[in-house]
Amino acid sequence: MTKNRLEAFSDGVLAIAITLLVIEIRPPEIGEGETLAHALWAQWPSYVAYLVSFLTIGVIWLNHHRIFTQVARVDGPLLLLNLNLLLWTALIPFPTAVVAEHLGDGGEPARTASALYCGVLLLMGLAFGALFAWVTHTDRLLHRLPPPGVVRAARRRFMLGLVVYAAALALSWLSAPLALALCGLMALYYAFDQASVPAAAEPHGQQPPGRSA
Amino acid sequence: MTKNRLEAFSDGVLAIAITLLVIEIRPPEIGEGETLAHALWAQWPSYVAYLVSFLTIGVIWLNHHRIFTQVARVDGPLLLLNLNLLLWTALIPFPTAVVAEHLGDGGEPARTASALYCGVLLLMGLAFGALFAWVTHTDRLLHRLPPPGVVRAARRRFMLGLVVYAAALALSWLSAPLALALCGLMALYYAFDQASVPAAAEPHGQQPPGRSA
Amino acid sequence: MTKNRLEAFSDGVLAIAITLLVIEIRPPEIGEGETLAHALWAQWPSYVAYLVSFLTIGVIWLNHHRIFTQVARVDGPLLLLNLNLLLWTALIPFPTAVVAEHLGDGGEPARTASALYCGVLLLMGLAFGALFAWVTHTDRLLHRLPPPGVVRAARRRFMLGLVVYAAALALSWLSAPLALALCGLMALYYAFDQASVPAAAEPHGQQPPGRSA
Amino acid sequence: MTKNRLEAFSDGVLAIAITLLVIEIRPPEIGEGETLAHALWAQWPSYVAYLVSFLTIGVIWLNHHRIFTQVARVDGPLLLLNLNLLLWTALIPFPTAVVAEHLGDGGEPARTASALYCGVLLLMGLAFGALFAWVTHTDRLLHRLPPPGVVRAARRRFMLGLVVYAAALALSWLSAPLALALCGLMALYYAFDQASVPAAAEPHGQQPPGRSA
Repeated sequence: MTKNRLEAFSDGVLAIAITLLVIEIRPPEIGEGETLAHALWAQWPSYVAYLVSFLTIGVIWLNHHRIFTQVARVDGPLLLLNLNLLLWTALIPFPTAVVAEHLGDGGEPARTASALYCGVLLLMGLAFGALFAWVTHTDRLLHRLPPPGVVRAARRRFMLGLVVYAAALALSWLSAPLALALCGLMALYYAFDQASVPAAAEPHGQQPPGRSA
Repeated sequence: MTKNRLEAFSDGVLAIAITLLVIEIRPPEIGEGETLAHALWAQWPSYVAYLVSFLTIGVIWLNHHRIFTQVARVDGPLLLLNLNLLLWTALIPFPTAVVAEHLGDGGEPARTASALYCGVLLLMGLAFGALFAWVTHTDRLLHRLPPPGVVRAARRRFMLGLVVYAAALALSWLSAPLALALCGLMALYYAFDQASVPAAAEPHGQQPPGRSA
Repeated sequence: MTKNRLEAFSDGVLAIAITLLVIEIRPPEIGEGETLAHALWAQWPSYVAYLVSFLTIGVIWLNHHRIFTQVARVDGPLLLLNLNLLLWTALIPFPTAVVAEHLGDGGEPARTASALYCGVLLLMGLAFGALFAWVTHTDRLLHRLPPPGVVRAARRRFMLGLVVYAAALALSWLSAPLALALCGLMALYYAFDQASVPAAAEPHGQQPPGRSA
Repeated sequence: MTKNRLEAFSDGVLAIAITLLVIEIRPPEIGEGETLAHALWAQWPSYVAYLVSFLTIGVIWLNHHRIFTQVARVDGPLLLLNLNLLLWTALIPFPTAVVAEHLGDGGEPARTASALYCGVLLLMGLAFGALFAWVTHTDRLLHRLPPPGVVRAARRRFMLGLVVYAAALALSWLSAPLALALCGLMALYYAFDQASVPAAAEPHGQQPPGRSA
């Protein structure tokens, strides 16, 4: 089972999931004596939910890509753990739609929508953590095992995600908007953390021909 | 007609079909005096249907990938048989939506929805079996024909799928949830069976350069 | 502008268009005192439309692939002509949905739906013919110009498609189901015609490394 | 982080966004005593919006492809700037749907819909300009920095887009159809401008093996 087709399939699912988010933003219905501009403003939770989910799936893609750059071999458990990660990631448009519809309601609907959203992200985080743990538990699947310090730092980053998503889940009962903001901040943190990775971290076996010179 | 573009197109269709499943899970309408949490629980058939269909399409992808790893040459009938397989696989979101909507109704709607679902999976299984039979009927399309014992074992696995999907179809009239559970178990069995394939089964001609050393 | 990314983008659009067809088949609404089984049968035009459109887009993919196997160079007009072909192909789910909804109505709606469907296929056929004419008008874009007899035969096949789609468009006013059947037959003809192409037609420059030995 | 997977992911998102446009064109509801033909004509804004958005996303793909042909190295900021571009591009189906629904209404809804549409294109243009500025601010990410005249010309083209989209945004308050026509013209201009790029502009390091002879 070659790695290339696994990456292509995963990229496909992630690209589709991130692009499907937009179909949950519907043209608003204009109420009696209301302007379209007002109706568009009124559905701000849709835009917030789109933004947070887009960032989150984008970061999942960045992390997925980064891990698989190191992977040399794909075994059966990795296939299943990857499918499990895709299962939760592909589900994200659903809680996004629930948040878009109910965040503006306040009260129980807003709290429940936010808890559902954070809960799905938490399960996605657990799935991603399990995949990462499997990949790094020996050097069997990797080009070479990164230095222990690097692996430990990556595990801390995964742990941080789980703690933050769990905190956001709990925060949902106090303030749904704050819980969502926390999820958005998490994605932003991951995005900038990713972006700071030096290009040199790439394994030699994967370098494009033109770069060895 | 090169194999690469056939794989890329099939991967695309499978990745889209698996990701489209989520758009059948809609934010629930909240009834008079009902909480969102309750309304979300009430649509459990949607989640069950998503899970079973996601696993099923995931396993179709795994099997498809595994067969095409062995394929060296693509001929006309294989193109058509592959298109036929994609036709039934891409259809799966439809019976999934019917099950999601009617499994909770019980009675005739639940039975019919389940029968439709199992029927489409049976037709998909027949399409997949036909493709596999064509690929393995000579060694013309393969890198090399696997040992007869391996081919026979693979054919038994396909046969098992057909028998189980036919049994699930029949079971729909007794218990729709049991019939769906059977389809889910079938996908799980295939998933774990796939996962146990040793990496060494990969043909030499397909190994990435870095692995021959 | 390399050919690979053009093919990847086109494959993506075609794979998505073919898979999106399914979201036009909705779970039926069950009328008063009606069974789900009956309601499912009643929307047979949806299934017919899905089948014909799936075959048609599948054949577009086969033909697209076959032409681009021969292409060595991509120039500006080819980019635009390809985008034009994708424009009409990506539109197919819309007339498919109109046919699915109105074929069973008979009368004006069925006729108009069928005419719309055949009209879009005709425009797609014109777009495809223009692309093919551009590719084969000199040997500048090809690995080598195929023998004149082969090019003439291919042009006849394109012409046949245009004539048949125009005939189906006219036939819509007499019988919408017959017009659609004609579109379906056209796709089947192309599919089997494609399938009979010998594998040896592939240009040498495109053979994967392992096959030259 | 290799360039290939970035391109594959971007191609996926762009291919999906361009193909999703069609699901905003719905089969029309037929009013009392109305023909389907009339109802189809009545939703002309849907077709116009589809056409303009298809062209626009098609041109984004062409430009994206063209820039990345020159890119040799992907760093963190480029990843984020690319994700930002995809965020606005993947959003385009939403303002497209709003325009499709409200352009025919005239008055405030038409103006607001048009302003929303042009505003999203303007933000997309800013995102694209930022990506281009980052890529060309040194020669660190490129195979080699193109001649200053070429970079200046490309910057002028980006500037032109921003000016035109801003003008279209302002024009929305005078005439929504004119504003949209301006966006369509912009896409056409870019398409033909792209199409006129000589094939020789491709960097040597990227040439397919067969072309160096």
